[in-house]
Amino acid sequence: MVVMLPASVEVKAHRINLLDRKIETLRETVAAEIPVKIHINGKHASTLFASPSQLKELGVGWALDHGIVKTASDITEVKVEENNIRISCAGEVEARLKTASTAKPFVKSKYRVKAEKILEFVNVLNEEAVVFKATGGTHSAAVFQEEKLIGFAEDVGRHNAVDKAIGAAALRKADFSKCVLASSGRQPANMVLKAAYVGIPVIASIAAPIHSGVETAIKTGVTLICFARSHRMNIYSHPERIET
Amino acid sequence: MVVMLPASVEVKAHRINLLDRKIETLRETVAAEIPVKIHINGKHASTLFASPSQLKELGVGWALDHGIVKTASDITEVKVEENNIRISCAGEVEARLKTASTAKPFVKSKYRVKAEKILEFVNVLNEEAVVFKATGGTHSAAVFQEEKLIGFAEDVGRHNAVDKAIGAAALRKADFSKCVLASSGRQPANMVLKAAYVGIPVIASIAAPIHSGVETAIKTGVTLICFARSHRMNIYSHPERIET
Repeated sequence: MVVMLPASVEVKAHRINLLDRKIETLRETVAAEIPVKIHINGKHASTLFASPSQLKELGVGWALDHGIVKTASDITEVKVEENNIRISCAGEVEARLKTASTAKPFVKSKYRVKAEKILEFVNVLNEEAVVFKATGGTHSAAVFQEEKLIGFAEDVGRHNAVDKAIGAAALRKADFSKCVLASSGRQPANMVLKAAYVGIPVIASIAAPIHSGVETAIKTGVTLICFARSHRMNIYSHPERIET
Repeated sequence: MVVMLPASVEVKAHRINLLDRKIETLRETVAAEIPVKIHINGKHASTLFASPSQLKELGVGWALDHGIVKTASDITEVKVEENNIRISCAGEVEARLKTASTAKPFVKSKYRVKAEKILEFVNVLNEEAVVFKATGGTHSAAVFQEEKLIGFAEDVGRHNAVDKAIGAAALRKADFSKCVLASSGRQPANMVLKAAYVGIPVIASIAAPIHSGVETAIKTGVTLICFARSHRMNIYSHPERIET
């Protein structure tokens, strides 16, 4: 059995408001984080600082969106033991990691989605972000398959949030070729690559793109939308998937 | 001579505004990033993804605020060659890195600062953040010594921004015991430790604390202020340094 720690913790704080010169001492809710080790076939592959939640999803998503495995069914076992995620999959770890680092994913999906829906997804992402509302210290990510939410996560790291949301969707046997990944985080190359590795055709982020992310999205066939907020969005690559 | 790349790049984007159903194609400015390798005494110590600016400051700040060297004068040379920062300092790399990982810094400074000044520092941080204003993709950090700005930086990474600002201040021979570090980034343990290692007594962040950051600030004697915005702030540790 896995005993999960809470994603947020109460601490003492002094709140100063200079408008009315008020100073209060109060209990404040802050986001928690733990070091998490990912092991692939018994070998340590990575150590992440993550929120202590959805560690199975984190492991599955991490293996998938780093290209270590092609589909969730390639994973034969995921065990969570305290801060350790132990993933078993067919093949040698070295070969897996080598394939991953040299693979050049390209998303060919013909999935199309309305611009209005993208903005709805971002609203759902914001509504579901309860740890963020309590702490201001987390990122969130969600996977929508044909407009239905099938994976959601919050984490102190924007990378972990995406890994967990993808892992949650994978455990529900997502068809990633018909999915949109919504994210609260900025999009450099290594964020965009996560979508490319699992074959998600559209990323919609609330935050800004980074140049490497735009270049990667163009090269990997991913539609990259950033600054998706209230009634507007910017599309940086493959705009043909967005219906207006 | 170091040829520095620009911190931002123009890309093509499609901007959709659903309020007036307007679709524009335009040139958008996005933040750039490059992989940067830090070498200490000829050995590779770390690879960072950073904005292509102030790489000397990044190297000096990184070595200082990771505890590799105690003061900037312990660094005998910093050479920037394309994406490589080569730092020379007395002593063996292994010994330096080992000392750093076992050191327990504690900031004893009696420096005190008015709450109003903290909010002014955050305003200066926002005003100076020109790359952020153009791209929305960068973090910023500033070091104020006795209320004067002595180091400022913007970077795609909140960690790099702090390293660069600390490095810039160190190159101007800062007395860190009388400094405030202003940051746009969230504050987990490894952000707070940077201030502790160089002896900065006060951190003022626009963003949220993470639980590990609060714990580290209490243990290392750093005053941690977060959510410093417009007229308010929360103090999570050592509030005696803040005058109201």
